[in-house]
Amino acid sequence: MELPSLQNPLLATYAIAASLMILKAVAMSWLTVIRMMQEKGGYRSPEDLRRTPLNPNPDPKQLAPNERVERVRRIHQNDLENIPFFLVSGFLFVLTGPPVWLAWLLLYGYVLSRLLHFAAYFTAQTHDMRATFWTVGSVILIVMTLWTLVMALLT
Amino acid sequence: MELPSLQNPLLATYAIAASLMILKAVAMSWLTVIRMMQEKGGYRSPEDLRRTPLNPNPDPKQLAPNERVERVRRIHQNDLENIPFFLVSGFLFVLTGPPVWLAWLLLYGYVLSRLLHFAAYFTAQTHDMRATFWTVGSVILIVMTLWTLVMALLT
Amino acid sequence: MELPSLQNPLLATYAIAASLMILKAVAMSWLTVIRMMQEKGGYRSPEDLRRTPLNPNPDPKQLAPNERVERVRRIHQNDLENIPFFLVSGFLFVLTGPPVWLAWLLLYGYVLSRLLHFAAYFTAQTHDMRATFWTVGSVILIVMTLWTLVMALLT
Repeated sequence: MELPSLQNPLLATYAIAASLMILKAVAMSWLTVIRMMQEKGGYRSPEDLRRTPLNPNPDPKQLAPNERVERVRRIHQNDLENIPFFLVSGFLFVLTGPPVWLAWLLLYGYVLSRLLHFAAYFTAQTHDMRATFWTVGSVILIVMTLWTLVMALLT
Repeated sequence: MELPSLQNPLLATYAIAASLMILKAVAMSWLTVIRMMQEKGGYRSPEDLRRTPLNPNPDPKQLAPNERVERVRRIHQNDLENIPFFLVSGFLFVLTGPPVWLAWLLLYGYVLSRLLHFAAYFTAQTHDMRATFWTVGSVILIVMTLWTLVMALLT
Repeated sequence: MELPSLQNPLLATYAIAASLMILKAVAMSWLTVIRMMQEKGGYRSPEDLRRTPLNPNPDPKQLAPNERVERVRRIHQNDLENIPFFLVSGFLFVLTGPPVWLAWLLLYGYVLSRLLHFAAYFTAQTHDMRATFWTVGSVILIVMTLWTLVMALLT
């Protein structure tokens, strides 16, 4: 049997939004790496103090928390609390066969809310501002999930 | 080409269980928010001490760990360690075409185990009790995943 | 309507790789349990100091961080930052209909990279070595996700 095809406009919309969110989350790993290399610190494991080509001058201070690294880790953790659930909720949502305009609105709206959340958190804007962007994404996630739940219960 | 439909009883069962688990995990984010507002503390970022409409009287103590907030964060972390894997494992499990009664048993059994785990953890029951509920869910997850692995290897 | 079938070789390949990665991540939970029982420590919640059949001689030191437990928790956290995104990215990747040999290479290559990352981290090899294995997996994840994004945008 054939697999569902990305030629389906709903599935294509989902695939685009999901891919962007996956790349966003993975970028947080790389941003952590970049900042650890810039700061030569923010490491976490005892063995990270061994002398290696990437760490020629080890120092016990390298294991202390480093705020520039910790900020990215907090952003990353927020992604882990949200994006995996979006990825499944969005997929089930498009399987319910919503109007394409609604899928665009919710899926791309979610992507936008997460990018704005990142921008606000990364540049240390107020808690209120990043909470606002987070709330937009979380409400979209809840709406999609409730929609799927109701559709699955009714059919 | 058409997408898989929620009219399929196995997929509908999965969609209901998955939606409930996504809502459960997202609820932990909101519960963290509620407790941070109740406690006016348990914050994590330096900028959270800026004076804003939602935090009119900032105080450095607001960045200290707050046990009522940390409890919800630990429950949330436990969700992150379990639910994303259930969401994918359950989907692949229904694709193997199991009997509907078995899908009901495992998928809704998993949901029940996680709700009981939450109840035990949230009300600070003994480690033994919450470990028991966690174990039920984890064993269901392992059984579904091994089932899928064997079916995929045999076909 | 019927569901996609594991008789499809691409979907079967995905199901095998995904099941192995789910079992790997779940094994980290069990390894944490095993080490907490060996060490009789590394607990996290105040109620874990209550006397129970599994903890007959509670001691406040049981709540202190225990490096043998924390090592597994760090490995687990690294899984949470990577595997959920692989699970969705790999699924969308096979939906794009890639050559089977390429799906084998990327999906099983990812699984191998994560198992090697575990071996390096668990035995406390240098940061450089575990970073190398992590990088292989992360690059595979990025390649699959970019592939899907381009295919979804072009169709």
